[in-house]
Amino acid sequence: MTSHFYIKQEKFLVSTDCIIFGFNNNKLELLVCERDMDPGRGELSLLGGFVLSGESVDNCAKRIVSELTGLKDIYMQQVGAFGNVDRDPGERVVSIGYYALIDTNEYDDDLRKQFNAKWVDINQLPDLYSDHKLMVEKARMLLQQKFQREPACFNLLGEKFTLSQLQNLYQAVYDFEIDKRNFRKKISEMDYIEKTGEVDKTSSKRGAALYRFNLKKYNKKQNFKL
Amino acid sequence: MTSHFYIKQEKFLVSTDCIIFGFNNNKLELLVCERDMDPGRGELSLLGGFVLSGESVDNCAKRIVSELTGLKDIYMQQVGAFGNVDRDPGERVVSIGYYALIDTNEYDDDLRKQFNAKWVDINQLPDLYSDHKLMVEKARMLLQQKFQREPACFNLLGEKFTLSQLQNLYQAVYDFEIDKRNFRKKISEMDYIEKTGEVDKTSSKRGAALYRFNLKKYNKKQNFKL
Repeated sequence: MTSHFYIKQEKFLVSTDCIIFGFNNNKLELLVCERDMDPGRGELSLLGGFVLSGESVDNCAKRIVSELTGLKDIYMQQVGAFGNVDRDPGERVVSIGYYALIDTNEYDDDLRKQFNAKWVDINQLPDLYSDHKLMVEKARMLLQQKFQREPACFNLLGEKFTLSQLQNLYQAVYDFEIDKRNFRKKISEMDYIEKTGEVDKTSSKRGAALYRFNLKKYNKKQNFKL
Repeated sequence: MTSHFYIKQEKFLVSTDCIIFGFNNNKLELLVCERDMDPGRGELSLLGGFVLSGESVDNCAKRIVSELTGLKDIYMQQVGAFGNVDRDPGERVVSIGYYALIDTNEYDDDLRKQFNAKWVDINQLPDLYSDHKLMVEKARMLLQQKFQREPACFNLLGEKFTLSQLQNLYQAVYDFEIDKRNFRKKISEMDYIEKTGEVDKTSSKRGAALYRFNLKKYNKKQNFKL
């Protein structure tokens, strides 16, 4: 690679920080780690890392999330760049935030413990290192906008889910109660959210019908709106 | 500033590139410059520049736009970070895109010429340097989403405008024709888009009523939806 064009310019550390969302016990949760380096050792923090020389910024974020979760093909979206001069107490770092949606049913909990990571309720966020809380707030706002117009929610659910689980997820993401009848009416207009024929009996004797998201059917219509 | 924490990490050039939108002759236009340095000298390019050491990334973008346009208090939004390894043919540069909306009535055209900049129709984009076309596409998508739910459009119009101008602006942003009756009905539900009592006679003898956006009234309701 040539490197003689912009020689007089200052260079910066560039990192990515990952806002990993999961849906556990009807709560939207965020995966945070105890920071194991100075400055800020012991503080709760997003999982992040520095961009390497041969690595795109997107791939840096993917590497970090897949190292931590052991999962492949994770749904990720960029949140944006955070570039205030004093944002990191250690040294100037320009950081790019990414949110990731994972199915916690598939996440090996031993791996979580190995990384000293824990889930915290998004509606009761603890203090976080640097400007990470700002990143989480922006990620959540983007998630809310995304969830209105695209079927991204299914990345947080197992392959099969009940409509109550789906409604609980939306309630957790927006942090307000949703009218059940109105919600079910909208769902019924999207024929790619289809019955599997199976019943979930974990929460009641009578049980609740299990649904799945049919991507092929969705791709023909793309009329998602919730 | 301390700088001994992250010493083993690689550093990168960081720049901002600005997607400056204006509304001229019923077209949404983009301000581009002829590149005056190698590599890519003479190619059309967004206006950009490197982040300086004491400057936040946001402020770098503001500096660039206000140097080019001479305007203050410009409406700007971050588009995101562009971080592919080979995106810049000169050397690796991580660039953060920002879009800016300016009122071209207030933009001194001599300044534009001085910077060797020109307006191009967003619906007939020429080739652009590096990944700048990708930046413009993403900016436009974000603009379309923004214009549905927030009254950001008025940053592209003069203080007074006709409803035809407003409709033409929306048509240019979305690149499709909008039903006039339906559009006017929605406008009439937003009482903060108010008549000034004046008439614009430039496009017809009878003239068209001039409107203005009343921010104070809007802040009480915030029910914008177009």
